Amino acid sequence: MNLDFFFYPNSVAIVGASTVPGKVGYELVKNIVEAGFGGDIFPVNPKGGSILGLKVYSSVKSIPSTPDLAVIVTPAETVPGIVGECGSIGVKGVVVISGGFSEVGNRGLEEELVSHARKYGVRVIGPNSAGIINTSINFHACMEFRVPRGPVSLISQSGAVGGILFALAREGGVGFSKFVSCGNSCDVSEVDVLEYLLGDDETGSIALYLEAIRNGRRFIDVCRRFRGVKPIVAFKAGKSISGGRAAASHTGALASPYHIYSSLFRQFGILEAPGLSGLFSSSKFLGLGFRARGPRTIIVTNSGGPGVVATDLCESFGLIVSEPSENLKSRLRGFLPQICSLRNPIDLTATGGYDWYYGVLREVAISGEYDLALVICVPPSFTNPMEVAKAISDFHNLNMGMPIIPCFMYGDIVRECVKYLEGRGIPCTFTLEDAAYVAYSITRFGGGFFGSPIR
Amino acid sequence: MNLDFFFYPNSVAIVGASTVPGKVGYELVKNIVEAGFGGDIFPVNPKGGSILGLKVYSSVKSIPSTPDLAVIVTPAETVPGIVGECGSIGVKGVVVISGGFSEVGNRGLEEELVSHARKYGVRVIGPNSAGIINTSINFHACMEFRVPRGPVSLISQSGAVGGILFALAREGGVGFSKFVSCGNSCDVSEVDVLEYLLGDDETGSIALYLEAIRNGRRFIDVCRRFRGVKPIVAFKAGKSISGGRAAASHTGALASPYHIYSSLFRQFGILEAPGLSGLFSSSKFLGLGFRARGPRTIIVTNSGGPGVVATDLCESFGLIVSEPSENLKSRLRGFLPQICSLRNPIDLTATGGYDWYYGVLREVAISGEYDLALVICVPPSFTNPMEVAKAISDFHNLNMGMPIIPCFMYGDIVRECVKYLEGRGIPCTFTLEDAAYVAYSITRFGGGFFGSPIR
Repeated sequence: MNLDFFFYPNSVAIVGASTVPGKVGYELVKNIVEAGFGGDIFPVNPKGGSILGLKVYSSVKSIPSTPDLAVIVTPAETVPGIVGECGSIGVKGVVVISGGFSEVGNRGLEEELVSHARKYGVRVIGPNSAGIINTSINFHACMEFRVPRGPVSLISQSGAVGGILFALAREGGVGFSKFVSCGNSCDVSEVDVLEYLLGDDETGSIALYLEAIRNGRRFIDVCRRFRGVKPIVAFKAGKSISGGRAAASHTGALASPYHIYSSLFRQFGILEAPGLSGLFSSSKFLGLGFRARGPRTIIVTNSGGPGVVATDLCESFGLIVSEPSENLKSRLRGFLPQICSLRNPIDLTATGGYDWYYGVLREVAISGEYDLALVICVPPSFTNPMEVAKAISDFHNLNMGMPIIPCFMYGDIVRECVKYLEGRGIPCTFTLEDAAYVAYSITRFGGGFFGSPIR
Repeated sequence: MNLDFFFYPNSVAIVGASTVPGKVGYELVKNIVEAGFGGDIFPVNPKGGSILGLKVYSSVKSIPSTPDLAVIVTPAETVPGIVGECGSIGVKGVVVISGGFSEVGNRGLEEELVSHARKYGVRVIGPNSAGIINTSINFHACMEFRVPRGPVSLISQSGAVGGILFALAREGGVGFSKFVSCGNSCDVSEVDVLEYLLGDDETGSIALYLEAIRNGRRFIDVCRRFRGVKPIVAFKAGKSISGGRAAASHTGALASPYHIYSSLFRQFGILEAPGLSGLFSSSKFLGLGFRARGPRTIIVTNSGGPGVVATDLCESFGLIVSEPSENLKSRLRGFLPQICSLRNPIDLTATGGYDWYYGVLREVAISGEYDLALVICVPPSFTNPMEVAKAISDFHNLNMGMPIIPCFMYGDIVRECVKYLEGRGIPCTFTLEDAAYVAYSITRFGGGFFGSPIR
């Protein structure tokens, strides 16, 4: 299904636009304007007036040219009529942000909405959606805070999961290409969006937050046809009994037993993330093309404890954290003092700076003994972690075919390093759990476990 | 063992102090001075001079009055002699930050260090320690960045783990009472510190980062004698085969099989954290006295997806996330619109503000149907999350016996809310995983699973 009019509209109407800051109908217009959308923006409200310098039209029909897309935030009972009105003037797609449909038991109203849409052939995202984003045209028709650009596209059955992942992206700088909050998926489904994004050149990887898939057969069909085309990382919520009930109250869908999803994911080479943060981290690295040709992992660190924890985590994901050869050790001993442990993790101790990090990475890459490097920096108060960031960046630029997963911890002290690296296309992780999961992910997709990449 | 001279010194010498910013020996003095330590500070370096306005003494022996404590950062080979010198003038304790001992195979040098200490009865923390902290007297003799005060005391076989947890504490505001980085534990062991802190009134809970316990018999003895005295949360690293090797390279100790630790923890009512972030979050809530009398959990959220994920996580920890009674639902329906789901999670939708959060928490507490509340806030761009923070704080002040675990996500948008709450003694969690683990922790220690608290 071609969803271009959703992602690349030339013009958009916001029905239910408001002049009152703090109201959804105001903040939505503000988000679209401030993100820098280049097309026409038509706020619609019977009261008229103007919002942020834009003329407010009293109805959809009074807009001078037909918008490609309408975003609707009016009360639930008014939505079917407005959708019909949009269809009648030739609007191609509507995004219904309003809630109060099947997710609270109002199935009749949702059916009415769908029948109005079908009558005119207008396609619907939502209702109960948080909106839609395409950063490549600065289009942010969404209730969530803004997000930096990047290679990841997110399909989510929760708007707030988008909000959480966007905030993680703002911590670093590498972010998203496209985002759809599917809401109740009364018409356009997550599978429709998945199929579209699998063919989207701007999307490097797809992150999928799922509670329940309504049309399993079509999901399987799309997964089979597009298998291995690009990385998909999924997080399935509603795994438990109460979680399933909660999911039903959220988007009105019934969740199948979790193990069915889990085996589908495995069968079609879809990675399953252990949590929301892993979902984003993994998509970020995969989306930027990071791949490891094998599971042999070197851990380079300035701190012993985090090195030990990372080793445990890597082994739990099936990665191999073995000792360097005597030859490699003696090359490393050429410039590292006795105080540094070389048994993998390579522990540069708290004094490890640019030269040691860079030197170790380069020697390890030359040796060919490892397929990827996990680089940890927990700066004590007397060091400058930017040295470590620069060593990573300079090594990365050598293009030696050994991907690096930086893990800078934590928060205030290392924020600048993370921004520096992500600004140069080198994504970072913020926890050891994420770093290990990313290592696993890029090995799965690089063919590291099976001899050939995930297909 | 009385370790008061380590935690409450009247005076401290820094041997190996440096006048060069960026050097360990400079930054350590700076940390002690800037933290506001009220006792005498004696930098020691043969070159003399002054550091930050403090006179530098040429040797330990030339210090005019005997310091209670000496912190040593000189090269490894000089340390045994300096320890002997400290002992000969009556210093009671030394913290050896210098590395290069058993962790890199230099067992002989470490034995020499111990024998010099034993000769004079001076007690040793380290070597290979990151230092020691007692926030109640503003004593920060540590390489890690500073940390806010709080109820948690951390015993760690890794200095950097301290650094990571301190950074987490700075994100919120609730932090630590005491910290010891044990390093190689050549004399004072983690078990000695554990025993001391179990009797320390300023310590509300103990966080334990362990790679290997050298004297298992004594550990078991202390755990048995002090069982249930105060919450202990442990994280064990070096669980895997390579992780065990890494641990040996880190502090020179051999790790026993993980399952031995795991069963000891269970036997003595020590919680085992799933990760470093959970280690801190759990200790923070337990240290401030948060307890739940049972596992019945209500989840209040403004976002459906995170509510579903939290439900899954809570169930995975054995908590009960069941629907409210019809009676409670009808009371909630009295002020919540149809759009809000009441089936637990209570989903207030994106528009949920002060009144709804506060009202729901109050009604739920009155009903007596739940033992604790997990409160999620993922603010979309049109809401003010401070309203949610204030609702939580006001409900907390009602003292209705239902503990709240706030989970604000994420980062830049909610930082102010987290600071607001933690500033009022209400700790926060930053991930759903941590929130669920904290719920489990305060239920374990509140007696929620067994009818009587952990003993």
